[in-house]
This record gives sequence, structure tokens and C-alpha cells, in this order.
Amino acid sequence: MKYVEGGITAAQGFTASGVYCGIRKNKTKKDLALIMCEKPCAAAAVYTQNLVKGAPIIVTEKHLKNKKAQAIICNSGNANTCNDNGEEIAENICRIVEKVTGISANDVIVASTGVIGQKLSIEPFEKGIPFAKDNLSKNGKNAATAIMTTDTTEKECAVEFEIKGKKCKIGGIAKGSGMIHPNMATLLVFITTDTAISGDMLNKAIKEDVKNSFNMVSVDGDTSTNDMMAIMASGIAGNEVIDKEGENYEIFKKALNMVTINLCKKIAKDGEGATKLLECRVSGAKDEESAKKIVKSVIGSSLLKAAMFGADANWGRVLCAIGYSGTQTNVSKIDVEFQSKSGTLKVCSMGSGIAFDEEEAKKILSEEEIIISVTCRDGDGEAKGWGCDLTYDYVKINGDYRT
Amino acid sequence: MKYVEGGITAAQGFTASGVYCGIRKNKTKKDLALIMCEKPCAAAAVYTQNLVKGAPIIVTEKHLKNKKAQAIICNSGNANTCNDNGEEIAENICRIVEKVTGISANDVIVASTGVIGQKLSIEPFEKGIPFAKDNLSKNGKNAATAIMTTDTTEKECAVEFEIKGKKCKIGGIAKGSGMIHPNMATLLVFITTDTAISGDMLNKAIKEDVKNSFNMVSVDGDTSTNDMMAIMASGIAGNEVIDKEGENYEIFKKALNMVTINLCKKIAKDGEGATKLLECRVSGAKDEESAKKIVKSVIGSSLLKAAMFGADANWGRVLCAIGYSGTQTNVSKIDVEFQSKSGTLKVCSMGSGIAFDEEEAKKILSEEEIIISVTCRDGDGEAKGWGCDLTYDYVKINGDYRT
Repeated sequence: MKYVEGGITAAQGFTASGVYCGIRKNKTKKDLALIMCEKPCAAAAVYTQNLVKGAPIIVTEKHLKNKKAQAIICNSGNANTCNDNGEEIAENICRIVEKVTGISANDVIVASTGVIGQKLSIEPFEKGIPFAKDNLSKNGKNAATAIMTTDTTEKECAVEFEIKGKKCKIGGIAKGSGMIHPNMATLLVFITTDTAISGDMLNKAIKEDVKNSFNMVSVDGDTSTNDMMAIMASGIAGNEVIDKEGENYEIFKKALNMVTINLCKKIAKDGEGATKLLECRVSGAKDEESAKKIVKSVIGSSLLKAAMFGADANWGRVLCAIGYSGTQTNVSKIDVEFQSKSGTLKVCSMGSGIAFDEEEAKKILSEEEIIISVTCRDGDGEAKGWGCDLTYDYVKINGDYRT
Repeated sequence: MKYVEGGITAAQGFTASGVYCGIRKNKTKKDLALIMCEKPCAAAAVYTQNLVKGAPIIVTEKHLKNKKAQAIICNSGNANTCNDNGEEIAENICRIVEKVTGISANDVIVASTGVIGQKLSIEPFEKGIPFAKDNLSKNGKNAATAIMTTDTTEKECAVEFEIKGKKCKIGGIAKGSGMIHPNMATLLVFITTDTAISGDMLNKAIKEDVKNSFNMVSVDGDTSTNDMMAIMASGIAGNEVIDKEGENYEIFKKALNMVTINLCKKIAKDGEGATKLLECRVSGAKDEESAKKIVKSVIGSSLLKAAMFGADANWGRVLCAIGYSGTQTNVSKIDVEFQSKSGTLKVCSMGSGIAFDEEEAKKILSEEEIIISVTCRDGDGEAKGWGCDLTYDYVKINGDYRT
């Protein structure tokens, strides 16, 4: 199992494109991505748990009832959410894809990301979708770029693996930088694979996967209205179809997880205004559920995030966040360590502070990737999660997002 | 019932002082407050629900088991939390108060606020408490100043009212600017009154009060380890002792609420880095519980807080926050209005955006006090809560708090 190039188009059968179609005012920024497969795919998705759901979420959920899809159309610049004609627009977008590509509108996954509550016009799609179709290629980077909003870099990843001698690939793209605190769903993540797998098992695989991947990322505690992770499997790799649990399913899930964790870290690292990737690792918690709650509380603490921005080893804020995590944790038995490529520093032992060298702490915390390692002595629950620091730029980006 | 001068010393029998005793490096900032009554008082307190509790919380809880107290000693600059000798230090502070004032150590409420996880030395208290005792006066402002940490201004309030012809007063001081997201407890709030009221009814009154006052304030979503609200009642006003529910108890609670809501707003307005006070008012929610959840979700949204800093009428973020509030709200029936002294502007009707004048929106949102008014159509649940905007200065203050 190894990382390979190609992102969303690494797997056999898939092509993609990203173009500017006129949704954004800024013509230098692509705003429409099309991902297509040469044949119908098994497909599945997970969605935001926010009560306010973008119109594309509702339409995609309907289209995926039969666990089949062949194309993904996604625009940035407008979330098509809280608009009274939103569902109609989303359906019309799929109908244009049908007209242009011949793929049934019902086999199209539609997604939108951007400002909430502004009407989305259908015109840009009428000329944009044919243009996107004409630009389809094995270069997935354009699609990765076209779905970006405040992201500063595109996020893609692909993995090659084998199932009983058959070479398979799985790859994906993701976007998301703010309003990121997924809950039983994700931001926008699209995954393609040439593995042969049934729609039911694909559905099961991503539902299990997000619990340890995208649901463990937080940039700012805000759960978006348009979160979606969708996956399409073409089956072109020719492996025996995975239609039950077992060794092959586990291999597939491992490859999927390699892609999703990689994308998670890229999203956290590119959090709005972020200068640092934070990974919190918890071990020895009462159970896995408790470990996850602790991770999310730590990476979600504005105070800790600001301290990490300042490379300030204010570990008291880690303990404080554990204390309000909603778990039953014996706080007098907690150890805390800060780690980075510059070293490892224990700052708290058995719930109390221990003397440490402030200069060494500063050096460790000045790196771009920081691990906050928490050891409890309550059981064997483990978890990991990802976040970022809180910076002036987060405020700047969000103080005037709409203009 | 009316506001009067005097803060924590407005009520009969109480004196207070605030001095510099050497806990802080900066000698121009007071760091020790003493509040005393000339006679023993009925007393009660509510505390943080964080599992990590400051040592003073544990000691005060023990001292207040008999619902009696006569003095409050509070230092700033060090939270005395996550220290292995913390409780011993907190007890020793109370013993010094006993030695200096003659009030039994068991009748002393002790509190600390500041950095977590740094040892607190007893020496500053040995010379500081006699000095504080010598400085006791009817000027409560010094105590209000001495408990401040990142607060930019002292917070005090007092109210005069009558119970069956007897003039009573109630007054208080509060501190808190960051790490503010109280849960069934508060930041540091000390209240004194000359009303005659039993310890049991005093306890009941503050437990009921915080649900609608300090538990409805959020600056940054971080629940502190040292939150405490304590109240002492001297009984010197001479009213018939309030020892059961009824008219007199209701008058007392109303006066208490006038003081606490006033302090709440002062705390939110002085949130770390804040330039604006945000008040969220929800009506028509399914029930009061739902209304409170919506309020807290809205005032807790980093995205909305940053938008308010930028005077950007990004109401989609209000809907988004309602959507992840954990309530069962019919989001397609929600109206949202922004209000300030510059006017009122409806931006969302029945869950969808409505056209509005961006310049008017900017004018309304440029004021220092903004009301975000949310009308649901699910029932008659109402709630109010207070927060502040998220600014560059919040990041600056917390990027390097310890140095």
C-alpha cells in the first residue's frame, strides 16, 4: 500500500476538470469542477448533521438512494443554501450535466460551497458545464482547485494497493478551511476508486471511516451546512467484488483511511489563517468515546489554539479543555507532552506542572506540525484528531467574508 | 428597585480593599482583594463544572458546607490550579486571614485567578493580607480592580430595593475576559447584600439566578477551572428573614438578577479583545431549553463573532449556528433581525434571505452593542445571552499570555 500521484483521477475510469464559469466575480479563480467516470459506479455519501442543509445535500441524498452515480458536479463561490429555489436550481444543474454528458441526472452527485443565503443563478452552469466537459482529463488538480473557497492550496491524495493480486487505486480531493467541525459527516470530500465493491459495502466503509477521519478535524467549531463526502467505485480494477466483510474489505478500508487521514491533515493545516497543524493524541482514556471527546475538546479550544500560534507552552489550557470535555477523566493522573520534529517535552505529570526549559518549549512549538500528546490512566481508549492554531488571519478572513 | 453606587460595599456591614502584594511582576497592578463583613453572614456559592478544579474551589466548597462566611480573599495573577500543593496553600491563605482579622479560617471564601499550573507562593500573602486589612474601606472599586486579569476595566454594580418597608442593598463585582463559557457556574463574581436571608434560600437564589445570567455568557467557549460566584448576606437591613419562597424571596431574586445581568453584560463587553457586545434574543423556540441552546450556539460561533467584528451582515452564519445547536428547530420558519441604536434590519424571513441595504446593515453593525434577534415558530420558548466579537486582539492577548 503506497501513496501515488493522480488524486481524484488516479483510479481507472475517472477524468476530471476545473473551470471558471462565472459564479465568482474573480475570473482568475476556478469555480466549477466536474468529475466523471466512463461507466456507472457504485456510490455512497455521508452528509452534514446541521439542521440547515444546503439544497445540493438534499438533492444528492435523493439521487444516491439507489447507491449508484457516474458524475460529480461541484461549484464554489455560492453554497446554494437558505434559498427558496435552491433545490430546483440543484436539480437543474444535474439536468444540464445529463444534457451535456448523456449521464442521467439521477446519477449525478451535486455539491455547492461558498456564501450561504445568496441566490444561485443557473446561467453560469449553462455555459460552464459544456466547457468543463470539454476539459475533462487525467489531471485531477484542476478539479481540486475549482472546489476551493478560502483554502490556500488544493488538497488531493491517492493510494495504490492490491486485492488478491489485482492492482487497485483510490484517490480523492477535499476542500475546507473554515466552518469546519464536522459531526458524523464531513466538509467537501470526493473520492474515486477503481476497486470493485458493492454500494452497500461502500456505504458501510465511508460511514465507518469518517468516525476516525473527518469527524476528528476541527478548525473553528462551526459545523457547515454543506458538508458532504461522496465516493464512487468504478470496479475497473477487476478484483472480485467486495460484497461482504472480510480480508478484502479490510484492505479496501485501510487504503480509504490512508487517503482520508492524509486529506484530514491537509485540511487542518490549511485551516483559515492557520500557520500550524495541531495533532492531539490521547491514550489511556476510559474508552474510545472518551478519548475522542478529549481530542475534540483540546483541538477545539480557542485559548490553546491561540497559545500554539504564539508558541506558548501554556499546557494548563490543555488540562482545562480536558476538564470540560464532558468525559469522566481522572485529571490528577494526566500527563501532557508537546512534540514536534525539534523534540519532545513533558510539561505536566500526574495533573501537575513540572519544570521545563522555556527556550526548548519555544523551539518545539515554533515548528509547523505540533503533536499534543495526552496520557490518561483510566483505561485503554485511544484517539487522534487534527486542528490548527488561531491567528490574526482567521479573524481577518472572517471579518469580511462576503465582500 | 434602582441602581446605586458602591458596588461590593454598597450593602451595610461590608468593607473591601485591593492591594499589590507581589504575586504579579508588574507592581502597578493590584493582585489581592479582601472583602469583609462586620458580622457573620449567610453565604452560598456556585462553582465551575470543569473536572479540573482550582484548589481554592475545593477549599471554599469545604468552608461553605455550613452556609456561613464572613470574608472573601481573592488573588489575581495565579490560578493556584494543577499544583500538587494547591489545597495546602489555599488553606494557609485562609489561616493568615484568621490570624490578621480574627475571622475563623473556616468562614473565609478563597479564590484565585490567573495562570494555571504555576506554583503559588505563600509569602506575598503574609505581608499582603495585613496590608489589605489596613486598607479596608467603603470604596469597593479597589477590590474590583485587584481581581482583574486580562480585563480592561473593573466591573461592579449595586441595586437598592425594599422588602416590606425595609431598605435593602445588593452589590457585586466580577472579573473575567477570556476562558469564559460558564456551565452551571460562573467566572469570579462576588456579591454582598444586607438583606436578611437564610443560607438555604441564598443558595437556592443564586443557583436559580445563574441559569439566566452567567450561564448565558460566552466569550470564547472555554469553561474555566476557577469559576465561582459567591454571595454573603449580612442581614443588617433588618427585614424579616427570608427563609421560604414567597413575595419577599421574589423581590430579592429580582434585585439579585438586576445585579448579575448588569455584570454579565459588562463581562461580555469586556471579552478579550472585544470591540462589541453581542446580545442574542430568541423567541418562539420549542421550549426555554431550546431557546437557551440556540442563544449559546449563536453567541459561541467564531464565524459569526468574526463577522460582527467586521460589521458584516453574514446572517447565514446565524442560521448555520442554529442548525448545529442540538435543538429540533424548524429552520425553514426562522426570521433573523440585526438591531442596534442605529436601527433594525430584517435579513432572513422563513429561513431564506431577503434583500436588504448593505450600507444600512453596515451602519447598524458598526455600533458597540448589537442585538441578534431570532424568531422561531416552534413554541413559546424564550432566552437571552451575551457574547462579544472575535478580533485580532483576542489572538494577540492569548498568543502569549504567560509572558
